[in-house]
Amino acid sequence: MIKNETDLINYILKNINNVSPKIAKSIGDDCAVLKISKDHFLVFTTDTSLLGPHFTNDYSPKEIGYKCLASNLSDIAAMGCKPKYLLMAITLPSLDDKWLKGFYSGINVLVRKYKLALIGGDINKGPMSISFQVIGESRKNVLLRDGARNNDDIYVSGNIGLARAALIFKRKRQIEQFNLFKKFLRKPTPRIELGLEISNFVSSCIDLSDGLAKDLSTILVQSNKGASIIFENIPTLKRMKKLLDTEELYESLLGGGEDYELCFTANKKYRRKISSISKKLNIKLTKIGEIKGKKLNYYNNGAEIYPEYRGFDHFQS
Amino acid sequence: MIKNETDLINYILKNINNVSPKIAKSIGDDCAVLKISKDHFLVFTTDTSLLGPHFTNDYSPKEIGYKCLASNLSDIAAMGCKPKYLLMAITLPSLDDKWLKGFYSGINVLVRKYKLALIGGDINKGPMSISFQVIGESRKNVLLRDGARNNDDIYVSGNIGLARAALIFKRKRQIEQFNLFKKFLRKPTPRIELGLEISNFVSSCIDLSDGLAKDLSTILVQSNKGASIIFENIPTLKRMKKLLDTEELYESLLGGGEDYELCFTANKKYRRKISSISKKLNIKLTKIGEIKGKKLNYYNNGAEIYPEYRGFDHFQS
Repeated sequence: MIKNETDLINYILKNINNVSPKIAKSIGDDCAVLKISKDHFLVFTTDTSLLGPHFTNDYSPKEIGYKCLASNLSDIAAMGCKPKYLLMAITLPSLDDKWLKGFYSGINVLVRKYKLALIGGDINKGPMSISFQVIGESRKNVLLRDGARNNDDIYVSGNIGLARAALIFKRKRQIEQFNLFKKFLRKPTPRIELGLEISNFVSSCIDLSDGLAKDLSTILVQSNKGASIIFENIPTLKRMKKLLDTEELYESLLGGGEDYELCFTANKKYRRKISSISKKLNIKLTKIGEIKGKKLNYYNNGAEIYPEYRGFDHFQS
Repeated sequence: MIKNETDLINYILKNINNVSPKIAKSIGDDCAVLKISKDHFLVFTTDTSLLGPHFTNDYSPKEIGYKCLASNLSDIAAMGCKPKYLLMAITLPSLDDKWLKGFYSGINVLVRKYKLALIGGDINKGPMSISFQVIGESRKNVLLRDGARNNDDIYVSGNIGLARAALIFKRKRQIEQFNLFKKFLRKPTPRIELGLEISNFVSSCIDLSDGLAKDLSTILVQSNKGASIIFENIPTLKRMKKLLDTEELYESLLGGGEDYELCFTANKKYRRKISSISKKLNIKLTKIGEIKGKKLNYYNNGAEIYPEYRGFDHFQS
């Protein structure tokens, strides 16, 4: 029985060929990796954004365009690569000038910032669906999820849980708080510069799209390792902690996706280097635990805790 | 005002950067072309398939999987390239074992035939939408739409109009005829082998996805040329001609898309070569006219005709 995303991915892995001589990494990472030569890689990712799971009717067209592309660029960031080229398959119920101009202006913010080129696509009529494909490049190496080693430090960039906090405030109809936090949900920053800086020394990396619990678990499963996470060290905004109760805090810090920060592991000898990258890019980089044992354990103020959140699956509640 | 696909493409071309030093061909051909080195090209295409415009509820899941991928591979064929890698962004209303197994078995027919690898994708819950991204490769050169020259012969492969004839029979509730023709609509053959064989000498090429009138017009506009087409030479099945009236014949031969045959132009000196490729691959290759003048003119038994069909646009009736 194929009951959820993981089952379906496993079914595909078992039944459809996914290997090829030049493919250094196939299904299972943020991007697929094509090795052109010893030090030349192309990476490929695709993500669909839909009304409902990815954006809602109260988003502006500009916010939709921005977020659809930002979530794809985040996958390139997690590979330590530079995004280069885009293709976009877009399905729209109708053509509306104002909507289209807003939507493409949101895309243009990122196209200009990262000097991207939109090189192809497809246009259809139907329920709104926006699928980007992004092609990234590296002239040195790529960052994978499966390289975490025992005793590595585990880091996250920026602040965690803010996107989910916005959704919690919306759910609770705390409009003022929602208005303060919605930018984190709608305008995430893909960590391209950070991915490029850390790409030649960290041992594994993933972007936080499905929640820290699920995404970190992916690193651990693929690396065949465990981890100890110090819950109180997970970086977030103080005012967010004040506004949420304990369960909501677990939900936003561990279960909440869409922060599009990077989570990566690195040998302890790189602590100083990581600190200097943090200063150089002006991005907070926080150690939240270390690779240890065979399971994922969480501690809060010295005591083990057992949060339920496992992250997001499109076919599970 | 953005009223149709062409308007939207023009808006994108004007407002979003689409050039980059290594991109030999951006928006405007069957695929985008990345020049890796002098004789190494990667080509990229994406196409979305939707319930309604691309398949209907009476398709089997296997037929849906096959056709979604075949239509994408056809774009690679039109570039004279070898398809290599796939990514698939799939949105499904629910996970159904039987449906999924059928669907992936349809995909597998082509994955096995062309030794493809599915290297990534995205899975979402929502109204059914299947977007493939196919990456193709060439170690010599790529076929573009813009190279047609005066006096070139114009060819099409296979038989034209059969997919649209199936739709006409369905519309007219001629169930017996529909059942005989539906395979042409549902199981098109991407002309990969043909594209590879002709890639080093034909002057332009396109796949017939939107109808001969529209697709040939694209070659003519991009090459800044005109053409004379001998309507009675457009190859099709005799029994189809018998079953359709004149208007329906125009509709299927000129307006009907989804044949996924190739239309290409070549210097007259290659006639013998084209004939021998036809025999070698056992694919009918028919000369239907020539590049001439500045407009697209149609002749039937010596007299000029003025058919209305211009091909398919998703946002126009």
